[in-house]
Amino acid sequence: AMAKSKFEYVRAFEADDTCLPSCWIVVRLDGRNFHRFSEQHEFKKPNDDRALQLMTRCAQTVMQELEDIAIAYGQSDEYSFVFKKNTKWFKRRASKFMTHVVSQFASSYVFYWKDYFKDQQLLYPPGFDGRIVLYPSNQNLKDYLSWRQADCHINNLYNTVFWMLVQRSGLTPVEAQDRLRGTLAGDKNEILFSEFNINYNNEPLMYRKGTVLIWQKVDEIITKKIKLPKEAEEKEVEVTRTKTKVVPLHCDIIGDQFWEEYPEILAEDS
Amino acid sequence: AMAKSKFEYVRAFEADDTCLPSCWIVVRLDGRNFHRFSEQHEFKKPNDDRALQLMTRCAQTVMQELEDIAIAYGQSDEYSFVFKKNTKWFKRRASKFMTHVVSQFASSYVFYWKDYFKDQQLLYPPGFDGRIVLYPSNQNLKDYLSWRQADCHINNLYNTVFWMLVQRSGLTPVEAQDRLRGTLAGDKNEILFSEFNINYNNEPLMYRKGTVLIWQKVDEIITKKIKLPKEAEEKEVEVTRTKTKVVPLHCDIIGDQFWEEYPEILAEDS
Amino acid sequence: AMAKSKFEYVRAFEADDTCLPSCWIVVRLDGRNFHRFSEQHEFKKPNDDRALQLMTRCAQTVMQELEDIAIAYGQSDEYSFVFKKNTKWFKRRASKFMTHVVSQFASSYVFYWKDYFKDQQLLYPPGFDGRIVLYPSNQNLKDYLSWRQADCHINNLYNTVFWMLVQRSGLTPVEAQDRLRGTLAGDKNEILFSEFNINYNNEPLMYRKGTVLIWQKVDEIITKKIKLPKEAEEKEVEVTRTKTKVVPLHCDIIGDQFWEEYPEILAEDS
Amino acid sequence: AMAKSKFEYVRAFEADDTCLPSCWIVVRLDGRNFHRFSEQHEFKKPNDDRALQLMTRCAQTVMQELEDIAIAYGQSDEYSFVFKKNTKWFKRRASKFMTHVVSQFASSYVFYWKDYFKDQQLLYPPGFDGRIVLYPSNQNLKDYLSWRQADCHINNLYNTVFWMLVQRSGLTPVEAQDRLRGTLAGDKNEILFSEFNINYNNEPLMYRKGTVLIWQKVDEIITKKIKLPKEAEEKEVEVTRTKTKVVPLHCDIIGDQFWEEYPEILAEDS
Repeated sequence: AMAKSKFEYVRAFEADDTCLPSCWIVVRLDGRNFHRFSEQHEFKKPNDDRALQLMTRCAQTVMQELEDIAIAYGQSDEYSFVFKKNTKWFKRRASKFMTHVVSQFASSYVFYWKDYFKDQQLLYPPGFDGRIVLYPSNQNLKDYLSWRQADCHINNLYNTVFWMLVQRSGLTPVEAQDRLRGTLAGDKNEILFSEFNINYNNEPLMYRKGTVLIWQKVDEIITKKIKLPKEAEEKEVEVTRTKTKVVPLHCDIIGDQFWEEYPEILAEDS
Repeated sequence: AMAKSKFEYVRAFEADDTCLPSCWIVVRLDGRNFHRFSEQHEFKKPNDDRALQLMTRCAQTVMQELEDIAIAYGQSDEYSFVFKKNTKWFKRRASKFMTHVVSQFASSYVFYWKDYFKDQQLLYPPGFDGRIVLYPSNQNLKDYLSWRQADCHINNLYNTVFWMLVQRSGLTPVEAQDRLRGTLAGDKNEILFSEFNINYNNEPLMYRKGTVLIWQKVDEIITKKIKLPKEAEEKEVEVTRTKTKVVPLHCDIIGDQFWEEYPEILAEDS
Repeated sequence: AMAKSKFEYVRAFEADDTCLPSCWIVVRLDGRNFHRFSEQHEFKKPNDDRALQLMTRCAQTVMQELEDIAIAYGQSDEYSFVFKKNTKWFKRRASKFMTHVVSQFASSYVFYWKDYFKDQQLLYPPGFDGRIVLYPSNQNLKDYLSWRQADCHINNLYNTVFWMLVQRSGLTPVEAQDRLRGTLAGDKNEILFSEFNINYNNEPLMYRKGTVLIWQKVDEIITKKIKLPKEAEEKEVEVTRTKTKVVPLHCDIIGDQFWEEYPEILAEDS
Repeated sequence: AMAKSKFEYVRAFEADDTCLPSCWIVVRLDGRNFHRFSEQHEFKKPNDDRALQLMTRCAQTVMQELEDIAIAYGQSDEYSFVFKKNTKWFKRRASKFMTHVVSQFASSYVFYWKDYFKDQQLLYPPGFDGRIVLYPSNQNLKDYLSWRQADCHINNLYNTVFWMLVQRSGLTPVEAQDRLRGTLAGDKNEILFSEFNINYNNEPLMYRKGTVLIWQKVDEIITKKIKLPKEAEEKEVEVTRTKTKVVPLHCDIIGDQFWEEYPEILAEDS
């Protein structure tokens, strides 16, 4: 009855899901039902710094714990992770990439919650979904990231005006929505400026550009206790160590400047 | 510069990953580096009740939060979730099934940790991987679950003897391994009985059979305050309500008896 | 310059396309631009016996030359080939099934053309396309074949009336189309009967039901020359040999009768 | 019984097989059992001009009849067809590419057979298999084609010596095989030169390099009859027309020269 071998034929039903070589592998993660989640946890609207910083903390953990992530980009309740074009991690099996990203992110979200939300209790464990997309060329990949950053811009401009209309002008959500229907970017900027004295370009970069995570060499000064051979006492010395860390930026990644400044991100051997 | 539409072509690179209709969809999740994780968190060997019960708690959450899971089976640091043959959840997209399962499981693991591990602090957020497999026939599915339960049996018998040799007889892990090399099930039973006076069949079912999660109608008696029209005072009455709950079992699922007892699990409309 | 090994990494770009085990594998082939092809080769309308018989000849060749085809069904310029549920042919690689079917069919079409079309010259080499579909259960497979036979019926009824209106009543194709717009099966039967004195049910089965190809044991009587030890002369004797042949049928495959009559087609070991 | 709609659910079992955008799509076709086929049709060894030219004729037909093939490369009984990186033909469905290539090739093989093999009868319709591979970058694609040409070189050098040993020195195939076991390219060149007075580099390019098919603008001079308004008689004039034709080359495609000479093959808009 316990003859395992008799049942082992079922392993053959697992399909191969190897990603095409020589392509950038992007895993994008989204919060599940985060509209409801953000209301129940009283997220500040349109942007909650605690929530955004927690997302970034989780994404940093993902980059540190998993292999070969060259860059990540996040906004709102989503984060995209870009694995190096020639990564051999888990033989490029799509399911491994997706599930490791979302599970590490999800456990980190609960683990680090209290560091950002303090007394605001986490009411239930949140869910995230993920998907995988391949991009054959560097241009395709840059266009993907530009697409997400353009999306961030459009949503944030809309949300900024919408919540001003609701919070400051006392419109109902439906009224605010009606007011904004059909307006262009220029119209929204104008409303912000003329009605609320807000210059959208002065809004925080994190809200307008989202968050870019890249690997950077960082000099750390640490204090070490050493004991010199000829001396009796230990003494403290300062030592500079170069470490590679995940660093958050809130800059434009649509134009060429970013890619010229950090050529190693797209470098062939990356 | 912000023309989102210019970049939207990148959406076309997302591949369709719809699962073949009319097949059972199984998502199996495994702890990432749980050997190390269990040591760092001082799991009791060979089985830690807290860890097993936490796994089951997370699996119950997955079944309750996600749609159309007919049955789940877990052992050690793995859990398999079986989605109904004809589920239309997320249009049967493989990535949705995998990522929702593992992210919900991972966030639950941290969320419910303290309910089981009390003062034992969680040191870091754990990772899980997941994979998806399709099974066309009921027999294939039963054989898959039998394969996992047979695996549970083989590993648990081995681990039970191994840790007895280490913990009680004072063998080193390498010595215990050497002692067990080449032994059959009968030999291991014999060692347990003659050297440690243990009848393996009396070991807890949860260790030997793993955990099966199914949906069961359960009668709940709740107390309600009601106010009858003609009476001035509220009064308390007991009301019986039937709810469908996820129930853990530790029984054999290799033989026919289980499937005959719960025919609804494989029922066509499930 | 000729170092082949330097380039061999490109083999890794080939994706695995193994079909899920335990499923029926159907390859359906269609003529490419056969509307134009049939006009240029003066096919009789609505049905050309030469063309239908040539299609069937090619399908028989496919069944004989390839492995593990349990049944085939054809109508008009299409043919479906059903490979056994548990076939291991070419490790169940989808591309192998598709390309072997269509290439064998296409070369046979030209090879056997003159046997059916005699003096009607073949003007150019025709193309065919193919696709592959998996069906997990016997019911799914029977429903697939029923779908194609129902399609045959609907098209043939329409075409029969359409071409009567054009050929006998002198309507233009557009007029005939207009006349038939919105008519139901009953209406079309009525037009055939009242205007052309045709009882549709007496039309040839091959037109109404299409062609089913199955394997059948057939007794063949062959004449052998043998020389008995004690006799000086050779003499001719008749010998009966049982061979398995591909046999065409023009019967209903939607109802149960066909499947009850030929249970071996769906048999587990098929 | 004929309710087609009842069965139409089976269409949902067709899987999407769209090729990743922005990748070169290569379909490679191989003769099925061509070892046996070449013996039965008395192909000249090691190279039969009729067979090679027929292969090329079929490949030209494929390029002319199908859309968006930028280049093809053939040797022995195989041909690779490269579809443009951004082709939208049949929505980039893999099965369409594979089956159209092999079916058009196979029907052409029989159709054009007699143009090359004259009195040598075709004994049976041959089969071909096909596979599809995606290459993300130009370099990957060039390396693929280099791989096939290096393969051509290695096989042709081997076969040239092998058949010399058999045909001229009277070795049996097994003896020739033994003689060549472990020899390097230099050894084989030496055998050819010293024993058969053959300088391998003077062997025909078609044998050594295979056949490259590309699109070329070709000027055609045609004779037209025209009637000028003021003249009574028609008169013949010569007119030059530029047409795009599939042209066979037998050149090196491993080095850069070929790609520099024909930059349009890899051009972005191709």
